[in-house]
Amino acid sequence: MQSTETIQSFYEQASETEQHLLTSFVQGLKDKRQGLYTTYINAAFQFDISFPEDTCRVEMPVTPLTVNSFGMPHGGILATLIDNAMGFLVNKELRPVGKGAVTTNLTIHYTKATTDAHVYSIASYLHKGRQTLVLEGSVYDTQGTRIAYATGSFFVIDLPTPQ
Amino acid sequence: MQSTETIQSFYEQASETEQHLLTSFVQGLKDKRQGLYTTYINAAFQFDISFPEDTCRVEMPVTPLTVNSFGMPHGGILATLIDNAMGFLVNKELRPVGKGAVTTNLTIHYTKATTDAHVYSIASYLHKGRQTLVLEGSVYDTQGTRIAYATGSFFVIDLPTPQ
Amino acid sequence: MQSTETIQSFYEQASETEQHLLTSFVQGLKDKRQGLYTTYINAAFQFDISFPEDTCRVEMPVTPLTVNSFGMPHGGILATLIDNAMGFLVNKELRPVGKGAVTTNLTIHYTKATTDAHVYSIASYLHKGRQTLVLEGSVYDTQGTRIAYATGSFFVIDLPTPQ
Amino acid sequence: MQSTETIQSFYEQASETEQHLLTSFVQGLKDKRQGLYTTYINAAFQFDISFPEDTCRVEMPVTPLTVNSFGMPHGGILATLIDNAMGFLVNKELRPVGKGAVTTNLTIHYTKATTDAHVYSIASYLHKGRQTLVLEGSVYDTQGTRIAYATGSFFVIDLPTPQ
Repeated sequence: MQSTETIQSFYEQASETEQHLLTSFVQGLKDKRQGLYTTYINAAFQFDISFPEDTCRVEMPVTPLTVNSFGMPHGGILATLIDNAMGFLVNKELRPVGKGAVTTNLTIHYTKATTDAHVYSIASYLHKGRQTLVLEGSVYDTQGTRIAYATGSFFVIDLPTPQ
Repeated sequence: MQSTETIQSFYEQASETEQHLLTSFVQGLKDKRQGLYTTYINAAFQFDISFPEDTCRVEMPVTPLTVNSFGMPHGGILATLIDNAMGFLVNKELRPVGKGAVTTNLTIHYTKATTDAHVYSIASYLHKGRQTLVLEGSVYDTQGTRIAYATGSFFVIDLPTPQ
Repeated sequence: MQSTETIQSFYEQASETEQHLLTSFVQGLKDKRQGLYTTYINAAFQFDISFPEDTCRVEMPVTPLTVNSFGMPHGGILATLIDNAMGFLVNKELRPVGKGAVTTNLTIHYTKATTDAHVYSIASYLHKGRQTLVLEGSVYDTQGTRIAYATGSFFVIDLPTPQ
Repeated sequence: MQSTETIQSFYEQASETEQHLLTSFVQGLKDKRQGLYTTYINAAFQFDISFPEDTCRVEMPVTPLTVNSFGMPHGGILATLIDNAMGFLVNKELRPVGKGAVTTNLTIHYTKATTDAHVYSIASYLHKGRQTLVLEGSVYDTQGTRIAYATGSFFVIDLPTPQ
């Protein structure tokens, strides 16, 4: 494993972009420790989660970490953003009753490119069954233009009882 | 912006998981500098790309960075893995003729959970049109069991001529 | 080819369901002749099309012709219903300017079973690009409960100029 | 309800296309009576079902009944064809053990237009879970070129015990 000297010497000779990525990553790790994030991936992407009305909203900054080779938000990262917004909404309701839900499928239409510094996703229910949940989720740029639209199915599972 | 002291002091008091995540992240940045990765996201996820026959294969380690709250590979990260395998295959052919392609839609079925240390995706063509390409991509665990299956459409675009 | 005698003798010994299906089919052919339907499939399914506000609404009766082996509306027929609602909305705008659009992909979530005598679909735009259109469409039962939800992409084409 | 005279007089003044559609429809009803088809929709579309190896193959003629306004196989009818091929494969295995399966979602990519007189679909398994099945299905023209590709999820249900 790499020693601290290596990290420090790397940082000192790093480009501005690299320094920014590294300090953001460390900040994410710190924030996760404080309980701001539930997973390291949410920390790395700085997902900011809220629950306006019956929806879940997740916002993320667009950084060198999250863009594709065209400099636009990576389609897979947008999928991660939407899947999280859906998953948070679903689990918010299920966790208190000892249940959870896993994504069984996800379909995403990418509708517009953006160079905005932030994007956000809003997820809401299309259908609430006993075992299957169907949700929709959009991603918007800062002007509120839809850049992606997704639907996802979730399967409800029983969570293991904590010992 | 955060100073080197902060990174160093963070590293020294970090948990084993945090130290591992941080050294991997730094290693990714270094490898990207060497040209091993085309984007920072590929570096962060350590995407290992190859082109067996007419397919593209992308392998990634499953680390604390890429798992969901159940400790399984995150659905969005698997989407990123598949989208990359498809995108690499598509652009391998298009770049030499001054073209590129962007994902217009992606559908993923998640078929099985895994706790394996590595997973890999294989992408191949279903249809090659002049303007629209359709690809399929699977993700497999280390035993070769399919854990996800996706189809995606790509739209061919002209790349701006380099000045 | 079958003679009129065969049709008549078939009709005379037919079950009530068969007689109903046959008379409905003939009525559809007649109505298509009068210009009520643009295609035979729309006539066979008795698709009733209207354009409330910026949407397209297509209603159909649920008959022995359109049910699956469980006696519920067939998933493929619901796909046909939704695809038509989307297609009518798209072409309503494109035909006057010499263009048309074809479905490039369609994703449907089936959310609820129904035994209602009628169902209807409402389609609307999610995204209007120059070459690509993305629409959503729901199917509802008579109580307004959503029984299916779909998204579809359409590709805009130039129609051949009439000679 | 319409009398036999109306059907007969309609037939006598009908166009060649109308006569062909009507005699085909009656033939379908007759064949269903003989047990050749399980549903009226399969009879109307003359679905010819077989089970080569571990797949299900369904062939249908392309007639004036099954084309869209461009004279090509209707996207919704192709969805019906694929959904049937998948459903037949699934239920072939489940019925003998008192179970059935319903489509929970279906994604179709339309890849090529065709003017062939017949098309056929081949469905096979991507994943067999205890409660969820994932299948793929292609539609081919007579030259074996893929004109559509679909994936579908099915949910396994207990069938009511016959009284």
